[in-house]
Amino acid sequence: MSVRVGLAQLNLRLGDLDGNAEMVVAAYDSAVADGAQVVVFSELTVTGYPPEDLLLKPAFVEGAAAALERIASHAGEVPAVVGFPEDAGLDGPIRLWNSAALCWDGAVRGVYRKHLLPNYAVFDEQRYFVPGSDVGPLLSVDGVTVGVSICEDLWGPPRTADAAAEDGGLPSIVGGEADTSPALAQVAMGAQLLVNLNGSPYRRGKQADREAVARTRAAALGVPAVYVNQVGGQDELVFDGSSFVTDAGGDVVCRLPAFREQVAVCEITVPGGDVAAPEGAAGAACSVLVPMLDPLDEVWQALVVATRDYVRKNGFADVAVGLSGGVDSSAVAAIAADALGPDHVHGVSMPSRYSSEGSRTDAAQLAANLGIDFRTVPVEPAHAALAGMLDAPAGGSGSPTDPADSAAADLTDQNLQSRIRGVLLMALSNRFGWLVLTTGNKTETSVGYTTLYGDTAGAYAVIRDVPKLLVYELCRWRNRQGDGERIPQECIDKPPSAELRPDQRDDQSLPPYELLDPLVEAYVEGDLSAAEVVEVARRHGADPELVHRVTRLVDIAEYKRRQSPPGPRITAKSFGKDRRMPITNFFR
Amino acid sequence: MSVRVGLAQLNLRLGDLDGNAEMVVAAYDSAVADGAQVVVFSELTVTGYPPEDLLLKPAFVEGAAAALERIASHAGEVPAVVGFPEDAGLDGPIRLWNSAALCWDGAVRGVYRKHLLPNYAVFDEQRYFVPGSDVGPLLSVDGVTVGVSICEDLWGPPRTADAAAEDGGLPSIVGGEADTSPALAQVAMGAQLLVNLNGSPYRRGKQADREAVARTRAAALGVPAVYVNQVGGQDELVFDGSSFVTDAGGDVVCRLPAFREQVAVCEITVPGGDVAAPEGAAGAACSVLVPMLDPLDEVWQALVVATRDYVRKNGFADVAVGLSGGVDSSAVAAIAADALGPDHVHGVSMPSRYSSEGSRTDAAQLAANLGIDFRTVPVEPAHAALAGMLDAPAGGSGSPTDPADSAAADLTDQNLQSRIRGVLLMALSNRFGWLVLTTGNKTETSVGYTTLYGDTAGAYAVIRDVPKLLVYELCRWRNRQGDGERIPQECIDKPPSAELRPDQRDDQSLPPYELLDPLVEAYVEGDLSAAEVVEVARRHGADPELVHRVTRLVDIAEYKRRQSPPGPRITAKSFGKDRRMPITNFFR
Repeated sequence: MSVRVGLAQLNLRLGDLDGNAEMVVAAYDSAVADGAQVVVFSELTVTGYPPEDLLLKPAFVEGAAAALERIASHAGEVPAVVGFPEDAGLDGPIRLWNSAALCWDGAVRGVYRKHLLPNYAVFDEQRYFVPGSDVGPLLSVDGVTVGVSICEDLWGPPRTADAAAEDGGLPSIVGGEADTSPALAQVAMGAQLLVNLNGSPYRRGKQADREAVARTRAAALGVPAVYVNQVGGQDELVFDGSSFVTDAGGDVVCRLPAFREQVAVCEITVPGGDVAAPEGAAGAACSVLVPMLDPLDEVWQALVVATRDYVRKNGFADVAVGLSGGVDSSAVAAIAADALGPDHVHGVSMPSRYSSEGSRTDAAQLAANLGIDFRTVPVEPAHAALAGMLDAPAGGSGSPTDPADSAAADLTDQNLQSRIRGVLLMALSNRFGWLVLTTGNKTETSVGYTTLYGDTAGAYAVIRDVPKLLVYELCRWRNRQGDGERIPQECIDKPPSAELRPDQRDDQSLPPYELLDPLVEAYVEGDLSAAEVVEVARRHGADPELVHRVTRLVDIAEYKRRQSPPGPRITAKSFGKDRRMPITNFFR
Repeated sequence: MSVRVGLAQLNLRLGDLDGNAEMVVAAYDSAVADGAQVVVFSELTVTGYPPEDLLLKPAFVEGAAAALERIASHAGEVPAVVGFPEDAGLDGPIRLWNSAALCWDGAVRGVYRKHLLPNYAVFDEQRYFVPGSDVGPLLSVDGVTVGVSICEDLWGPPRTADAAAEDGGLPSIVGGEADTSPALAQVAMGAQLLVNLNGSPYRRGKQADREAVARTRAAALGVPAVYVNQVGGQDELVFDGSSFVTDAGGDVVCRLPAFREQVAVCEITVPGGDVAAPEGAAGAACSVLVPMLDPLDEVWQALVVATRDYVRKNGFADVAVGLSGGVDSSAVAAIAADALGPDHVHGVSMPSRYSSEGSRTDAAQLAANLGIDFRTVPVEPAHAALAGMLDAPAGGSGSPTDPADSAAADLTDQNLQSRIRGVLLMALSNRFGWLVLTTGNKTETSVGYTTLYGDTAGAYAVIRDVPKLLVYELCRWRNRQGDGERIPQECIDKPPSAELRPDQRDDQSLPPYELLDPLVEAYVEGDLSAAEVVEVARRHGADPELVHRVTRLVDIAEYKRRQSPPGPRITAKSFGKDRRMPITNFFR
């Protein structure tokens, strides 16, 4: 026998309780019109995921309950499975369940409460929720028994610590080896199909990992599984959707597109019951089986969607990007043009006395290639004015006379130029209502090769989680997509330079990126100690002294990162709530 | 019978495993020399509290174990009770216990593991730790049975939700009404004395709340309780110490000073055993019983210690403060002078074309009163240069022609002045190695009456959690302390103004602070909805429209706060990890 399941993969708007309820109702109607016998939404549907400390506001939880009521009152005989935060009626600071309402015939008919609450990586669910303990209620859909669960509740016995570390935040269950998952209990109680609500953010390769786990689970339990995830950007996170269905043998038989909204209906053959099932014991018929994306395509789309949603959901239409002619700012401008359309992107070249002619012409060429607005504001007048103003107080009582003097003066002058650019971009933002995008990559963000309030000034750090070498790969990939050269080859080929003093090049201050990127990855994403990173360095032919310099740079740049704008997570460990390091920190 | 307990209230350095071990050994020796029969330290002694994601680094946990070994190998026959993160040998992302080692005769002889792991407000303990389940081991000290527990494990049955909300983060136990606390079980097993290790950050009035709970617990359980807390600043948190002892009747018989290190030995009479106890069934003899601080003194000291530790622990000696002649920057300079000494504070006046003569002379008078360095850098040259540079691009393709044009131009010009000041202060920081303190109070931080990268530019936001009216109170209090007028009366008396356009005053943009402060407190600290804040406003005679404007301002300023520097928490809910709001947020 079979059942037609509607998968509603929506770009929910965080906290827009009324708007989300409307979106849910429209998706429900559309799925029902397409023949769905049950419609499944993503985790915490009515609020969007993650609501963070909005969940501490009683009025927010009450509003979510009211939104759920509106959805339930709209539901007809086809059940809708809708996530919401549920008041558990408890004393103390933690008062909610993370719940899924089973709604039909105009009312909430049952509620499932999430058992396993992730509280690691970017997740803080134990800050808000207490665990549920019931494995039911099971849902009966035209004779098929359906188990409803939320995210980790579908997962089986714990994986090893090493596997958990490797995939950086794929959920696992702590303690105990026995499979005590709600999913197993549901199957034991007769569930023929498992539906699972998720708020699962993107990182590189995440979908392959999700499907591997779901495949194993479905095959082990002998029932098909439906995985529904939301889509869209939310501050530091971007959700890829990629909702899917596995049949009872563990094969993926339906996959919705990554990074796009879609409501699809999938006919799923379930084990048991009617022996004349069309495709054998367990199969599925579904017209939607989108292939997984190429790895670079996947990252590019993640950055595009995250940027589009951050800009538009925060009420902006246009963005400004400072263009240096280098690869980072070129990549960000190209992402912004793909996200918002070239008419909504404003490139600003701000050459200083140390800028090469190439940096100006390359920036202009990039703007021409992308078809974006381009303007030039040389920083010299402000540079001269500020340098003059600083001469006077430099002679005051705090004037140092030690040999570090000229190094400090050089650093001061370099940062000055960068900060003037920050001031100019913010002035354009104030004047024209453009949101400023910053252009720092993960490598330089890690080691603090940035000027606070200079190149870090802006609302969204598009490539903050993209290591430098991946920036190059992405630019080359984008140039191969058939719409001509987007990022000029010169921007890709030139040696990286901040151009803040004569003949400056990144490799005067930093090791080459071919070495630096793996060191940073080992230290930041791998949480290795400096001693362990030395082993990584040896494999790349680098000396231990260099490793200690790099890890120390990463540590002391924490204060800069703390004041830098958010940007989308694409790796197993991004900066922001994924990595909560103290600023005041004596650990070496 | 009685026992002499050493209380080691230390200013631990976060992550300085070797340094903390040395500090612990010295405190142990000092307490033993003073006759202690057991020495108790604060929670996570060897790492300092809170280590945050350092706990995810295996090398950090191994280093902490090595530091504990050094302490244990030093311990003689007098037991030391030392907090440390303990590898629980688990798979999955959460792998540690929050533990207390009982060390004597050169080794760790037993380990107690914390049961109740706070995961709300500023606490994230369930991100790192799994709960312990044993109530023991109990410690025997010269015939007295001692129960060891950590923080919430001492607390009894859950308080009501309202009580928890009111005191904003005083621990409580979730679920269940029965007293299942480890402390109760320890007394049932024969404990005659309870010692409790804490990492309990300061907020206003916290000590009175702690003592009230401990008093109730000690009296209910009929045994004395020893509460040891660390002291000192750690990023957003400041720990007040204020370690104390209650006797078996619940009276506080020993209290160490707030905000200062101290190692004290307290002779505590315990129930049972020797009938010839000196002060009846249960009492204590201790020479240290420091009175609790006056409420304003307490806040001032919190700000002073937090500032001193942030500056010095991060390797700086001197700070720069932009002085406007207003009350906020005056307060910050006065706090800095108390924290670091006047020789280490550099006041910088940066008048613009709109600055009043009073703002310059008042700033100069403040600097003279405090005895700090003072210099003046008018912003006009940079202001003129940048305004000229912005004329050209303003004529580009993005030039708006709508009626909002002049408002946008005015905003741009105001922010420009503020950002030039930020650039100047950061240049002085680069040049002379001064750490920049920002001067925004909680009220303006809440409603976003700040310029990002302007007055928010700096490393530490000293009064970020201090509402405007409290800033006034603190200044007046400081002026009464007997060392003359620190903050000139003119700075306190003048109407608040940003002086970024002619004749500007705060009350042209914002409601009077007498109204605004309670509204912000209700919305931010109280987590009330806008509708509920309207009720607060009615009591102050304000109209609902104003409330909605204020709550909206608080919501949309989230992006500014996210990029602002950390500052010490002194209220029941500060910005930072205490209040984790989404930036992209449609909830109204």
